[in-house]
Amino acid sequence: MPTEPRVPLVVSVPDEEYAAGLADLDGVDVVVWDMVRPHPRGGELRYVVVPYMSHLRLTDVVPGLDALEAIQLQSAGYESHLAHVPAGVALCNAAGVHDASTAELAVALTLASIRRIPEAVAAQRTGFWPPLELGQALADRRVLVVGYGQIGRAIARRLAPFEVTVTAVATRARAGDEVVDAVHAIEELPDLVASHDVTILIVPLTHATRRLVDAALLARMPDGAVVVNVARGGVVDTDALVAECATGRLRAALDVTDPEPLPPDHPLWRTPGVLITPHVGGATTAMRPRALALIRRQVVALRDGRRLANVVNA
Amino acid sequence: MPTEPRVPLVVSVPDEEYAAGLADLDGVDVVVWDMVRPHPRGGELRYVVVPYMSHLRLTDVVPGLDALEAIQLQSAGYESHLAHVPAGVALCNAAGVHDASTAELAVALTLASIRRIPEAVAAQRTGFWPPLELGQALADRRVLVVGYGQIGRAIARRLAPFEVTVTAVATRARAGDEVVDAVHAIEELPDLVASHDVTILIVPLTHATRRLVDAALLARMPDGAVVVNVARGGVVDTDALVAECATGRLRAALDVTDPEPLPPDHPLWRTPGVLITPHVGGATTAMRPRALALIRRQVVALRDGRRLANVVNA
Repeated sequence: MPTEPRVPLVVSVPDEEYAAGLADLDGVDVVVWDMVRPHPRGGELRYVVVPYMSHLRLTDVVPGLDALEAIQLQSAGYESHLAHVPAGVALCNAAGVHDASTAELAVALTLASIRRIPEAVAAQRTGFWPPLELGQALADRRVLVVGYGQIGRAIARRLAPFEVTVTAVATRARAGDEVVDAVHAIEELPDLVASHDVTILIVPLTHATRRLVDAALLARMPDGAVVVNVARGGVVDTDALVAECATGRLRAALDVTDPEPLPPDHPLWRTPGVLITPHVGGATTAMRPRALALIRRQVVALRDGRRLANVVNA
Repeated sequence: MPTEPRVPLVVSVPDEEYAAGLADLDGVDVVVWDMVRPHPRGGELRYVVVPYMSHLRLTDVVPGLDALEAIQLQSAGYESHLAHVPAGVALCNAAGVHDASTAELAVALTLASIRRIPEAVAAQRTGFWPPLELGQALADRRVLVVGYGQIGRAIARRLAPFEVTVTAVATRARAGDEVVDAVHAIEELPDLVASHDVTILIVPLTHATRRLVDAALLARMPDGAVVVNVARGGVVDTDALVAECATGRLRAALDVTDPEPLPPDHPLWRTPGVLITPHVGGATTAMRPRALALIRRQVVALRDGRRLANVVNA
């Protein structure tokens, strides 16, 4: 006896490459839609993937999407969209998708600062080969990872083979893992920074973490310590950091700044010992395969009546 | 019955810090000697540690060292000293001492090139915050490590957590280890570079490896590939590398060059996509604790009548 033909799940993705990556899924109709052009099957769409780095407002595009069950973002951040999600529709972020890329940049910034890559780039401009002297190494250093969620752990795993000591801090103390003996509570931060050569920030920006790294905390860090920020610029008091780096006492490697973008005349740009990348942590080639894997899991979950992951407005 | 008092083993080290690190060894007299000033107990010295980065000629200093059994270098390189070692005296290099520092720099150069740190440093000079676009990541890349001795393995171990595929090449094919499935033979190199995004060089410079990376091999590399050299400058045909990078087809990150030091007007300095550090791979703070550990092992071996390690003129 033939079974009733199942109504396919209609979903949209922003480009052909993602569509090709879902083409083998049974019971799923994939539409390529940039969320700007008219949507011929809009009334059937149950899951839409928002283009990466688009500035669209959801309220401009959701009218007519009468079957919509979930909106998928490709960013970890979602706050600016929350107010624009229709009642009863799930908003899903892309937590996890940017972990590899961001953790990798945290280690890249740490190594670049300690091994004096910016100084080498400057010397290269003038064709100057300096006489050999003993430089700094990451090996044997004590590294503090502040924020020990998925990206913090990804950073720690990448640091582990470099013959360093890795210490983790999170909101609450808890047991360790394969890299760290224990996770320390944030209340210990002032004492911990004092005994670490590198402090890597990967906490979310909240009321509790805004200006967490202020003049008092920076003052606790040992001479020559490096501050690496791949969290949000607002976690650090920029003026205090500029003051500590300007004297040469501390160094910094920052993928995020406050303000951001940094105005051309901001003193942080030219403070000695400060390396700045323009918030490129997550936006790399590592993102798309991981985003596609998430989208596949979500589409299969929706098709099979299972729960979506990464719902941020539940 | 009291035993005959043992004649202490007299050794020299180049500074007080090393002397302090050996002070607890029974049956060992440690003398601080820079091998330049007169040596008050020269006739008793059985093991001497040559100062790091000194340009002394052994033939100038060994006369009068009548008890000498071994000369300890703090560098991995030893070729320039071989002809100046008295008959019957062992010359020991510092293989292993620079592994952590050099492997770390190889990963630092790889990450810096792929994550466009030199471009960020240049943008920083002008205070320019570029619009966000998808960048490159190390994650998902195929990395080829050419030369799979101690440093090659140390590089592979550090790369492993970055979600990359690591492939190793050595003189002869052999079984793999915890990071690579197998070690490939050097004859496979042309095919292997063609399928890898990053090629890291850490082979010794020999007749067989001089200009190993020539125009033909570079031509086999895929568009956008990165050449990382922490071996010796002579392993690469510099003119051919300049030509491939000048067109933007390849990138390079080099701790060693040919010639070295690189003259101020050499085109390599200003070739697009080329990052140069001035041969700083091994000369870092990571060196001294590892050198001291080697010296301790050597002194204990000599005192206890066991074989010295790292003898290069046996």
